[in-house]
Amino acid sequence: MNLNEKIREVVGRFRREFKYVEVIPDSSEVNLEKIGKLIDQTLLKPYATINDLRVFVEKSLNYPFHSLCVPLSYLEETKKIIERSGKDMKITTVVGFPHGNIPTRIKVEETRYAVDHGADEIDMVINVGFLKSGMYDLIFEEVKSVVENSGDLIVKVIIETCYLTDEEKIAGSVISKEAGANFVKTSTGFGEYGANTRDIEIMRFAVEGKVGIKAAGGIRDLEFLLKCVKAGAERIGTSRGIEILEEVKDCLQRRV
Amino acid sequence: MNLNEKIREVVGRFRREFKYVEVIPDSSEVNLEKIGKLIDQTLLKPYATINDLRVFVEKSLNYPFHSLCVPLSYLEETKKIIERSGKDMKITTVVGFPHGNIPTRIKVEETRYAVDHGADEIDMVINVGFLKSGMYDLIFEEVKSVVENSGDLIVKVIIETCYLTDEEKIAGSVISKEAGANFVKTSTGFGEYGANTRDIEIMRFAVEGKVGIKAAGGIRDLEFLLKCVKAGAERIGTSRGIEILEEVKDCLQRRV
Repeated sequence: MNLNEKIREVVGRFRREFKYVEVIPDSSEVNLEKIGKLIDQTLLKPYATINDLRVFVEKSLNYPFHSLCVPLSYLEETKKIIERSGKDMKITTVVGFPHGNIPTRIKVEETRYAVDHGADEIDMVINVGFLKSGMYDLIFEEVKSVVENSGDLIVKVIIETCYLTDEEKIAGSVISKEAGANFVKTSTGFGEYGANTRDIEIMRFAVEGKVGIKAAGGIRDLEFLLKCVKAGAERIGTSRGIEILEEVKDCLQRRV
Repeated sequence: MNLNEKIREVVGRFRREFKYVEVIPDSSEVNLEKIGKLIDQTLLKPYATINDLRVFVEKSLNYPFHSLCVPLSYLEETKKIIERSGKDMKITTVVGFPHGNIPTRIKVEETRYAVDHGADEIDMVINVGFLKSGMYDLIFEEVKSVVENSGDLIVKVIIETCYLTDEEKIAGSVISKEAGANFVKTSTGFGEYGANTRDIEIMRFAVEGKVGIKAAGGIRDLEFLLKCVKAGAERIGTSRGIEILEEVKDCLQRRV
């Protein structure tokens, strides 16, 4: 089956079988380590100063996050602060962010920069315009090029669901999976809206368990995080990781 | 005078002398050619399809715009459509867009891509976080690198005023001028707000007539365009160029 046939097959199955089920968040097994390890704690606003970055990294290092997510131009400084702290923390950075409408060659250059400067994971933005134009082969080649140039780094593909029809969400997810991505991610956090549980369920349906789902954009509290997890997200991107883990602490305190 | 002294000098003069004057738009000399030649007619939304692009370019070619502004990944297609039409139209593209927080090396790669693929003008986004951190030398070097790699292309530097204090607007403008940019530009159109006449006047004050000002972001009608021009803008970026030139036609019709 070629790429187009594969997408058509999944879209067909989606139309016949998919039924959105509103999820009920499960807080029974909440603990700090478990929730922390789901989170890419994120600072991507374009007006963040170097001092904002330092405060962000130093504060975040007191929590058990999976990684800190920063833009390429703050990658070196983030690495330095983490190394100086002696603590262990992964770094995620972004490629083609946030609009995704730059040539593959540039996304590959960004990927190489990320590899050379100590990133552990890469969140790349798909070319949304190409996806909506049905230019699937170009997107496949682009994701594949990023994956091939990323060494052993984890690659997540942001499809920016807020601009997509259900069929396009499926196409973007299937292409990402076929091209070797490790995760498909809902949103940049800079589009018209961010993550929602229906989109997560659609993406999970599309990738058939073979790649992870990262939910990001507007995840501001523990309840919504748990909903996203219940819907199928295995990673969460949020700029409010500290507030969420403080909520976890409060929650555990109340149980004692 | 080094860069920091220069900025301090202009900021000092700004504090003593600058007085914002609300402008009254002047429509006495409005004509199609004159207004058209001010406009970079723009399609930068990340979800624009290849068909959206084709319709945009073909329609826009019926009007006397200065240029069409498209993202890097649509540069080749735009060039092709213009060439096929046999008409004469410049192309503007964007670098480091819209967040500006990628390394200089990548902005230079994007600049080279723009040069190699037929762009006439480049609108680059400054590293806003670096500007707000006072890292002026790094920004100077970055703008200079883009200018040096742009051949004979026009370079405009977007300072994204919505995130800046008045002093930062001045610093960004002075640095752009000193680094050899042709224009300083107010906004990407994707920040918290776009152009306003006060920011244009501040930027004009800062560059002392030595580089042009481009106003962009939220310029949706002829009246506001004329206000921006009166305040000192010599170029206008808008996605509503056609609507504005149709307004000009109506305006001239009524006078007959």
